[in-house]
Amino acid sequence: MHLMTLFNDATNMERAEEPLTVNPSEVRHPAVPYHPSLENSAMENLNRQKETVFSLVQVKGTWKRKAGQNVKQGLKGRVSAAKIYESSSSSGTTWTVVTPITFTYTVTQTKNLLDPSNDTLLLGHIRDTQQLEAVRSSTKPLKRFIVMDEVVYNLYGSQVTDYLEARHVLYRILPLPTTEENKSMEMALKILEEVHQFGIDRRTEPIIAIGGGVCLDIVGLAASLYRRRTPYIRVPTTLLSYIDASVGAKTGVNFANCKNKLGTYIAPVAAFLDRSFIQTIPRRHISNGLAEMLKMALMKHRGLFELLEMQGQFLLDSKFQSGMVLEDGHIDPASVSTRVAIETMLEELAPNLWEDDLDRLVDFGHLISPELEMKVLPALLHGEAVNIDMAYMVYVACEMGLLSEQEKFRIVCCMLGLELPVWHQDCTFALVQKSLRDRLQHSGGLVRMPLPTGLGRAEIFNDTDEGTLFRAYEKWCDELSTGSLR
Amino acid sequence: MHLMTLFNDATNMERAEEPLTVNPSEVRHPAVPYHPSLENSAMENLNRQKETVFSLVQVKGTWKRKAGQNVKQGLKGRVSAAKIYESSSSSGTTWTVVTPITFTYTVTQTKNLLDPSNDTLLLGHIRDTQQLEAVRSSTKPLKRFIVMDEVVYNLYGSQVTDYLEARHVLYRILPLPTTEENKSMEMALKILEEVHQFGIDRRTEPIIAIGGGVCLDIVGLAASLYRRRTPYIRVPTTLLSYIDASVGAKTGVNFANCKNKLGTYIAPVAAFLDRSFIQTIPRRHISNGLAEMLKMALMKHRGLFELLEMQGQFLLDSKFQSGMVLEDGHIDPASVSTRVAIETMLEELAPNLWEDDLDRLVDFGHLISPELEMKVLPALLHGEAVNIDMAYMVYVACEMGLLSEQEKFRIVCCMLGLELPVWHQDCTFALVQKSLRDRLQHSGGLVRMPLPTGLGRAEIFNDTDEGTLFRAYEKWCDELSTGSLR
Repeated sequence: MHLMTLFNDATNMERAEEPLTVNPSEVRHPAVPYHPSLENSAMENLNRQKETVFSLVQVKGTWKRKAGQNVKQGLKGRVSAAKIYESSSSSGTTWTVVTPITFTYTVTQTKNLLDPSNDTLLLGHIRDTQQLEAVRSSTKPLKRFIVMDEVVYNLYGSQVTDYLEARHVLYRILPLPTTEENKSMEMALKILEEVHQFGIDRRTEPIIAIGGGVCLDIVGLAASLYRRRTPYIRVPTTLLSYIDASVGAKTGVNFANCKNKLGTYIAPVAAFLDRSFIQTIPRRHISNGLAEMLKMALMKHRGLFELLEMQGQFLLDSKFQSGMVLEDGHIDPASVSTRVAIETMLEELAPNLWEDDLDRLVDFGHLISPELEMKVLPALLHGEAVNIDMAYMVYVACEMGLLSEQEKFRIVCCMLGLELPVWHQDCTFALVQKSLRDRLQHSGGLVRMPLPTGLGRAEIFNDTDEGTLFRAYEKWCDELSTGSLR
Repeated sequence: MHLMTLFNDATNMERAEEPLTVNPSEVRHPAVPYHPSLENSAMENLNRQKETVFSLVQVKGTWKRKAGQNVKQGLKGRVSAAKIYESSSSSGTTWTVVTPITFTYTVTQTKNLLDPSNDTLLLGHIRDTQQLEAVRSSTKPLKRFIVMDEVVYNLYGSQVTDYLEARHVLYRILPLPTTEENKSMEMALKILEEVHQFGIDRRTEPIIAIGGGVCLDIVGLAASLYRRRTPYIRVPTTLLSYIDASVGAKTGVNFANCKNKLGTYIAPVAAFLDRSFIQTIPRRHISNGLAEMLKMALMKHRGLFELLEMQGQFLLDSKFQSGMVLEDGHIDPASVSTRVAIETMLEELAPNLWEDDLDRLVDFGHLISPELEMKVLPALLHGEAVNIDMAYMVYVACEMGLLSEQEKFRIVCCMLGLELPVWHQDCTFALVQKSLRDRLQHSGGLVRMPLPTGLGRAEIFNDTDEGTLFRAYEKWCDELSTGSLR
């Protein structure tokens, strides 16, 4: 048998068992002819005359390539979802690896998260029943590293400590001032130093973050870097992070004066949502969260919109603290609205977790607002800037005939009812233009503008002309700068 | 129609179109009874009496949940591979998101990478023919940020500059001392500051790294953080990085005195391999790379082992510079050995790119060596420490009856022929024990020891007892510390 055959035939499942009797010095030139004209061109990789696809089969712990797209699972061993495409040319070989990685995470609404009889904070992330039983029956104490926002620590630190003490957990709580100004890689590294010193098992001892969006984002980044991925848990304490940061996979810190310039798409192993934290949030910050909720309503859910329209004030007054069941047996708007907000968000995020698809309805309110937010910081909260962006876009949609005057009026009234700003003097038309130009550049040449096409439904538009944008801008200023709609 | 029905029926594809006539204030309590006994237990999430699985269907740009595991692609719209599992209890709802993200990367062997007539460096990563044509026909100059190891820059900087000038590329080359000591987040951030200042399009202007493993790892980490993922290209200039770092997805920097403690699993968009760089690598560093090649041979490919056995010296002498076709028409060992090393590595990495499976043959030689390497740094190169680890493990395999004395002898002779150390005084039995204990802790309670079970085949073992390890250790010292096999 010729040695070269053996080398070429990497698909030979038994190759290791076959003794080689041929001298490797006799290895011969393969049958690919030498084409100098082709040699220096990337094109040759595309003209894959000789492309072969390989599946991967595991036999006794060893993965082996096997030619063919659809190799069946069988006696031979387990088959991977990964594929390798190989093509050869005179200058060498190109292998293309295509491999799906499955990401799993849970979002759990719970009550009394800090009640020592509630297992969720410590065990709620364990999906495997066997593993859960093993942990429960083990006498080894659990070990947890917890990062808390400083303000949250002042309010809930003793409750968290009591919980951990009651559960005999080996713990370290690190309170940090997780403000927008401190959202940096330096803070992520500080967390990592403490984590490293404390020592955790990268597979079974998730890092827990308790705080608002900034805290959850920084800890998420730190955890996704530690040993290339350490599980972490998100416990949001603001309405905004409850319905937004906790539901997705994004982590990040600011860098070079830009928002979330550095980050990853590593979801937490679990997010535990307890509405009771929201009772200590100032009213303005609840409005802030309601803006992102309204975004989902406008894009996807008329029922949620109508709920916010009618119950907005009640939600602000009650700080989302009414129980699941009201005294009169009615379900309360706090649980319905948060549930629908999360469900609609998950619908959009789950199929596009790594944001490979640039057409995203969840970008509504986020085309102009980043520019505005950075310009007027700290005058506007994130949700406030988002709402100003949304208000202008509603005028654009109306100008394009996508929304009626009456629908526009209802939306703006709803925004005002949620106590959100609908206009800002620093949101000039020049800023609108610059934002959309930037968007064009970062979104593969299309502006990809999500616009409502009715109450609770939307589409992505790429053909909004300058004239329309300007007329909408003028009307927006005319009607809302003077507060005439109030 | 009762509003609660609408809210519960999130699967209703047409919900946005249906007018709501019911007052949201009439929302009623759902049918789940209140069980205080269940309330505070994570168990309830597991007892998913009411678990529903949802597929995700996109209609006119909006993703909507649709109950059912296997919703068919149809007129209704495209179906995502993602699923959402929902279960309800008295304390709220748990959603579990399961979503596969497909990663694609190419590894391309090429020649004359820095010849201005070769497109590969600039365009070789573009897999889409249409996109490639668009770039080719555009008059807009290409823009590239390039990080080079300082030493590599001194050798090849002018060639790279000439290449970029000839191709009218807008470029910035950043030479950095990418040594093991400097492999830190600080250096990654320095790169990011320069990238940010230079300005690149996160979708179309990949960052290029030219250097050894350290350089490729740092740039990989920087790129995977920038805007949550910016494509990058690896151009390895050492044998070790040619067959190892370039082929996989791992990025990383050292942290808190630990090797690669921080990092990600983001593969480069492409790795371009040109063997000509290896000609400037010192002989000892070629041996260093040969150790990782031998690892793949011992684990998976008898043919490669026999080639290294017979042609090891030729490979060292010729520095992998013999052409694809030798004068006499024979194919040379340099191209065969690198190709097989890459193929066997890809076989093992592609199905396990994020290292979720802890049973990894590629860990052979990496159980004891990290401890040894950190202990004697900088006395041993990475591949040298790996080889000492492998040599000991060969004795373990022999002691267990997995390898014959003759096979053991052949392997050790091959190692010596590759000019690699097979024993080290600092590799004490205490160090072996400590390494395996650490391994046990980080590998879910099993030692997962890859051992050769013949020439070019291997399995994972978890039951190697202390006595065997010690007898193997004694024999290893007896036979190799005195150099009696030499």
